Formats: sequence, structure tokens, C-alpha cells
Amino acid sequence: MPMAAIDDKTLDELLDFADGLASAARMVITTHFRRDLAVDHKASDMPRGQPVTEADRAVEKAIRGMIEAHYPDHGVVGEELGSVNSDSEWQWVIDPIDGTRAFIAGMPLFGTLIGLTHLGVPLLGVIDQPVLGERFIGSARGATFNGHQMRTRACASLDDAVFATTDPAMFAAPAARAAYETLRRRANVTQFGGNCISYAMLAAGAIDIVVEADLKPWDVTALVPVVEAAGGVITGWDGGPAHQASEVIACGDRALYDEVQPLLAGAVA
Amino acid sequence: MPMAAIDDKTLDELLDFADGLASAARMVITTHFRRDLAVDHKASDMPRGQPVTEADRAVEKAIRGMIEAHYPDHGVVGEELGSVNSDSEWQWVIDPIDGTRAFIAGMPLFGTLIGLTHLGVPLLGVIDQPVLGERFIGSARGATFNGHQMRTRACASLDDAVFATTDPAMFAAPAARAAYETLRRRANVTQFGGNCISYAMLAAGAIDIVVEADLKPWDVTALVPVVEAAGGVITGWDGGPAHQASEVIACGDRALYDEVQPLLAGAVA
Repeated sequence: MPMAAIDDKTLDELLDFADGLASAARMVITTHFRRDLAVDHKASDMPRGQPVTEADRAVEKAIRGMIEAHYPDHGVVGEELGSVNSDSEWQWVIDPIDGTRAFIAGMPLFGTLIGLTHLGVPLLGVIDQPVLGERFIGSARGATFNGHQMRTRACASLDDAVFATTDPAMFAAPAARAAYETLRRRANVTQFGGNCISYAMLAAGAIDIVVEADLKPWDVTALVPVVEAAGGVITGWDGGPAHQASEVIACGDRALYDEVQPLLAGAVA
Repeated sequence: MPMAAIDDKTLDELLDFADGLASAARMVITTHFRRDLAVDHKASDMPRGQPVTEADRAVEKAIRGMIEAHYPDHGVVGEELGSVNSDSEWQWVIDPIDGTRAFIAGMPLFGTLIGLTHLGVPLLGVIDQPVLGERFIGSARGATFNGHQMRTRACASLDDAVFATTDPAMFAAPAARAAYETLRRRANVTQFGGNCISYAMLAAGAIDIVVEADLKPWDVTALVPVVEAAGGVITGWDGGPAHQASEVIACGDRALYDEVQPLLAGAVA
């Protein structure tokens, strides 16, 4: 998908601003991560899931506050707190903590996702892992990993591929299950549990293919510019725009995509 | 399982030494992790799996060299390079990189496992995550996370539990599969892909139950003193010693163990 045409100065400003949003999110998240481990252990006294809900909301509030202050006319779509300015040509699509289960389990395979669409097209994306201090950014300016250029790697065949998917239970329908079993059986290595970090590692050249289902716009929008600017391909299983799909395939190498996408096209729910 | 009786000075020396082994391993691993991402991207030019095999061997060689120099009569059992001094009452049981797939995928959910048994009983264990700089140690001295005391948390029921297991494909046999499906359905949260880090997070009070199968002695021995010294329970599915089992259950709370272990006892391969 081509990036929407935006002048250089505007894009630079938006990238700087998105970087600032990710830094703000990082400060909030690191105060909540593994908080239960400190001093005493009263997890069982708290309502189930309370810590992460609190962290999710605190991060999303911080991000929304900054957007409202800097770009009061822009739209925001967030997982926790709904939508504002839905008619704006600019839409920030936010997942404060993608990978809630990993966050709860104390594993740094979650991230803050910040996407921006212009006239419906993903313009920039940020994947931020606050514990590792790792930030992945994609736009027409290119793709970076902590400021260094990153590229997907060559891997033309599923037989050689490192395959990542967060949870095999995503593949509930029989056709989806069959496609998953094929991927699992043929891929060289399969890694579970990665959430958005799977896509970041694909963009950085450590993973070759990610296939998932049951995703929401805030799970996907930020990933699109990161993967595409790094040289990868990301679409729905049907080949359509990923940020409008709930079933997504991402590949580092177009040849691998061309091999696997037809397999998934027949499994679309 | 009771720890074997060892005098304080001997245990302190062995703990210091094991800590040094983990530090040596960390230096080697951090030079290999995500090495393919640097500068150029020639992963596809290399024999499949080469980087991790090289890292595994380099780490195990470093550890073995140190053991041979300090304790030439001690036994060593390692994943990569076999066994020496099998008749010694002291046996170091080493997995240089537990979680090879996570290592390859660029995700810090792998670790170096260093266990020591005395007369067949696990005496001390170290789980070291080199990228995060996180070290979990257990012995009769207690359990520590980067030098701070750690404890498992209370969680008496599976319905409230955070459940971790690396890969559902571990549960291949029908009875094991059925037990897994029950765990998955009833647990509050399920997280995949964690390898040894799941047990470390159980010991630290973020995860309540880990159930896995298809494990080897070097996957398990180091975990036992870490989990037990933190207040948890770890056994085979049949209730026997975990370090002699390939099917393992670990719980932070004995009440949870007492609920779930009988379910698994009927699924032993």
C-alpha cells in the first residue's frame, strides 16, 4: 500500500510527536510492570486483572491528553476509552498495552502501539517495548529500531522460516485451523506468545512470518508502516488492507508472502 | 523435596561459583543474541540454525571449562556436549540456552540453566536471562531475584490462575491433550512461549502455574531449587521428583497444586 502524500515537515513533526507519545507511555508502563512483585504479594487480594486495566487506562489517558493538547482536531481510536473526532482526516489508533497476558505474566512481549492514519491510510507506526527500551518506528522516512535503520531479511520459503503467532487458539474455525497446522508443520521454527513484538522482530529481520486472527484495528494499524517501511508485506488473509482486517499475515520476504497468502485466502472467516 | 545437608561454607562457595558461571554465560550469549540483525542480513546464507548452535556450544564450553578448572572431580551433564564424571556425588546439570526458538526469534524468553545435584538431590539452581539482566537463584539459603528475596504468591484456585506453558504441541497424547484443554479453559490467563522464564516468573509471584511435557533433565534440574526455595511446589505429573520427570507441574501455591496435580496424574505418558 502506498503511503499517503504528506509534506516532509508535517511528517517530521508527527514522527517527533509519536515518539514523544511512546516515551510518555513507557514512563507509565514501567511503574506498573511486575508491580505485584514488590515488597508484599497481595495479588490475590485485588480484583482479577485490576493492575493491567489500571495500567492500560493510565497509558491511554496520558496519550490522549497529549494528542488533545497538540492536535485537538485529530481523531483518536483507543482500545480502552473509545473514539473521538471520528470525522477527522487524521486518526490516531492506539493500543496502550498490546499483549496484556504477557504483561500480567511478567514477560516483556507486550508493547504500546501508536498508529496514525491519514484519509484512511496508515501513515506512521510505533511499536514500543518499555522494559527492554526498544522502539520500532515506520513511515515514508523508513523503518528504525532504536534510531538505527532496520530491514526484513530474505527468506523465500516456509520450510526455512521462523514463524510466530501469539496463540494457536486464534485459529478456531476448521479452515483456519488447517492452515495453521500447515504453517506449524512446515515452518522451521515456531514461537508463540509474542504479540506485537513478533511483528517488530519481523521488521528487524529475526522472524520471517507472522500469521494471526481475531485482531482489532488498534492491534494492527501501527504495525503496517513498521513492517512495510522495513521491506515486508502485511495484509489481511484475503490480500486486502491489514488495518481493516481481523486476520493478518506479515512476511519479511514477498516471495514467502506469495507462497503462503493463497493458503490463507481460502481460510478467511 | 528436602535439600541435601551441606555445610554453610560449602554451599556459599558453590552459590558464588554458580553465579560466576551465569555471568560467564551472559557475556557469551549477549554477543550472539540478534547477531544477524547487525549491519547486513545474511541469515539465509548460513546453514539453518547455525547461530544458535554456535552460541549454545560456546556457552556450554565456557561453563564446562570453569567447572573443570574449579571442581575437576565434579560431574557435568549438558545438553550440547554430553556427560563427564558420571559417578561423582556432585553433578552440574546445564542447559546453555533453554528456549532456543525464542533466542532465534529475538525474544528474551530464553535463559541459561545451571543446576547442581548432590547425591541425586537438586541443591542449587540458577535461571539467568542475559538480555534483561535478570538472575533467579534458589537453594537452602532462599530464593532471590537479582539479589532480592522473592516469593511465590497465593493463588488457591485454577480459576484465578495465570497459567504458562511454552507450546501446546507438548501435549500430544490424548489424555495429556485433554488435561491441557481443561487447564486452558479454566485458567484466568494463559501465556505461551516462556520456556524457563515461566518458572522464574512463578517463583517471583507473577505466574501461578506452569505445566509442561517433553522435558529433559537439563530443562528441569535448575528450576527445582528456584521454585521450591521461593515457596512453590514442582514435581512430575505423577507427583515424583521433577528433575527425574519429563512431564512437570509447578505451582506457586500448594493448594493450587493439590487441585491440579491429580488431574495430571491420570495423563502421565
